[in-house]
Amino acid sequence: MVLLGGAVFFEGSEKKVEIVLAAGGQDLRNLERSFWDDLVAQCKATILSHISNQKMQAFLLSESSLFVWNDRIVMITCGGTVLINSILSFVDIFGVDAIDSIIYQRKNEYDPRRQESSFMDDVAILKNQLTGVALRFGHLDGHHNYLFNLEKKYAPAANDMTCELLMYQIQGPAADVLRANQSAKNIRELIGFDKIAGDFAYDDFAFSPYGYSLNGIRGEDYITMHITPQEDSSYISFETNIDLAKENVAIIEHLIDLFKPNSFDLITFNTNLNIHTDYLKGPLYRENISCGYNVSFKQYFKQSNLQLRAIKL
Amino acid sequence: MVLLGGAVFFEGSEKKVEIVLAAGGQDLRNLERSFWDDLVAQCKATILSHISNQKMQAFLLSESSLFVWNDRIVMITCGGTVLINSILSFVDIFGVDAIDSIIYQRKNEYDPRRQESSFMDDVAILKNQLTGVALRFGHLDGHHNYLFNLEKKYAPAANDMTCELLMYQIQGPAADVLRANQSAKNIRELIGFDKIAGDFAYDDFAFSPYGYSLNGIRGEDYITMHITPQEDSSYISFETNIDLAKENVAIIEHLIDLFKPNSFDLITFNTNLNIHTDYLKGPLYRENISCGYNVSFKQYFKQSNLQLRAIKL
Repeated sequence: MVLLGGAVFFEGSEKKVEIVLAAGGQDLRNLERSFWDDLVAQCKATILSHISNQKMQAFLLSESSLFVWNDRIVMITCGGTVLINSILSFVDIFGVDAIDSIIYQRKNEYDPRRQESSFMDDVAILKNQLTGVALRFGHLDGHHNYLFNLEKKYAPAANDMTCELLMYQIQGPAADVLRANQSAKNIRELIGFDKIAGDFAYDDFAFSPYGYSLNGIRGEDYITMHITPQEDSSYISFETNIDLAKENVAIIEHLIDLFKPNSFDLITFNTNLNIHTDYLKGPLYRENISCGYNVSFKQYFKQSNLQLRAIKL
Repeated sequence: MVLLGGAVFFEGSEKKVEIVLAAGGQDLRNLERSFWDDLVAQCKATILSHISNQKMQAFLLSESSLFVWNDRIVMITCGGTVLINSILSFVDIFGVDAIDSIIYQRKNEYDPRRQESSFMDDVAILKNQLTGVALRFGHLDGHHNYLFNLEKKYAPAANDMTCELLMYQIQGPAADVLRANQSAKNIRELIGFDKIAGDFAYDDFAFSPYGYSLNGIRGEDYITMHITPQEDSSYISFETNIDLAKENVAIIEHLIDLFKPNSFDLITFNTNLNIHTDYLKGPLYRENISCGYNVSFKQYFKQSNLQLRAIKL
């Protein structure tokens, strides 16, 4: 479907999985590149580029990102990808017994009908092979985040935390810049990452006619950002495992201030973020999930006194 | 899918069509009951009951309502109904040339994947047979209302106006009452319609285990209300063609105060409603559609400082 002056609809919102192998498993970093090519192909994506350091590998995908450590992977895919197929493939190869933790998430989608499966379809398939719990953070009538986790005792390390920032309906000068054809260098400068997280090694890609992905790594730490600027379905995600509360909560405030989303969600695992913002707030959803993480979800939004025309379809 | 302690999901949000015959056509009120039974069956609904007066007929359906006047129908259907099939059947029987106006609307759905077709699927089918315009009022990232209208010169009568109130996530004592098994009489008293619109003739029905529909008619005027109280997908719609701004805007305020929705939408055709409310507001979408109506859409919502658990699926 073509919308708004030819801007093609793209579903930026992501599916995400983190899988942790049991102690004593093989070092995932020793797997051949072809293994990751195959895994990524299962969900209908491809690997665009790759960076690594002594602790981890980061793959930039045609639809988002894959990070690999010694004992775990984080895979994030957007668009029409079918991440559940990559998960099933991984579980099939390693076996359920060799896996200590699986956390599978799906964000609410702009257009759920374009997806091959619903979250509950995916859960039904997973439950054929393993025991787990399916949850929803947030009401169906607003932003919400689906989460499935393997029901298995697991004790996350003290520094194992994640923060996800999901921004919807971006606007203002930075949004306008993103809607024109840009180089990756221009977008990286627009975001100003070099200033706020300059000690990360970066890999990024500007899609044509627009869209942008960035991976950054530093030791075991990652940041990743994915931009879908299309006006009718704009979405930017930022995610990291660094301790933002301690290190740099200003990154979140900087991104919100830069992209001026009409609404955004903050999702945290084993951390709390107190951001300074004049956005209005939805309920805080908080749950200790059965694999040892404290997960929180909150939607932020704005009033408007704009008068707009209807959108011609 | 079973949700929240066995409450079965139900898609309360409606599709709606208004079709007006060209002058000199037959009086639709003279059609046999079997005609309406067949028309309603096309979209997978059935007629439950029927009232009429000298100006119009009102059918209460298994999924919402059908109103019939001399030269026009308004048909509103919820759940998994396929209203487009009834529209195609009506157009096929009467012929496009005998029709002066078609306005087809679809509200945003709690679960679009459960629908047989999307709005744009419906539009593609309609455009095989007639020329029309497809619009969306509201952003994809929030409540929104799709509208398709026949591209044909049409001049609505001066008193031709409609107001639609759509309430989501109802709460409080009245919502609790609706979630228990109730008689139609109890629900009618709860709503207090006799006091605020006592000169209408009513027909209503309480579904088991819950859910409620009401039609009311007075001369050429109708009111209709449909209640889906299920906690995870609660929705109440109220619609009328009376001039609320002149006659009784308090009905809207009364319903909002009674059902305390977390958010609601107001949609108007050829009228303006200034309601007194402390709800926050989204943008006002306003458009003069090509068949002569001025249509407006606005979403109202609330902040929250609640802390909630995740919803177990």
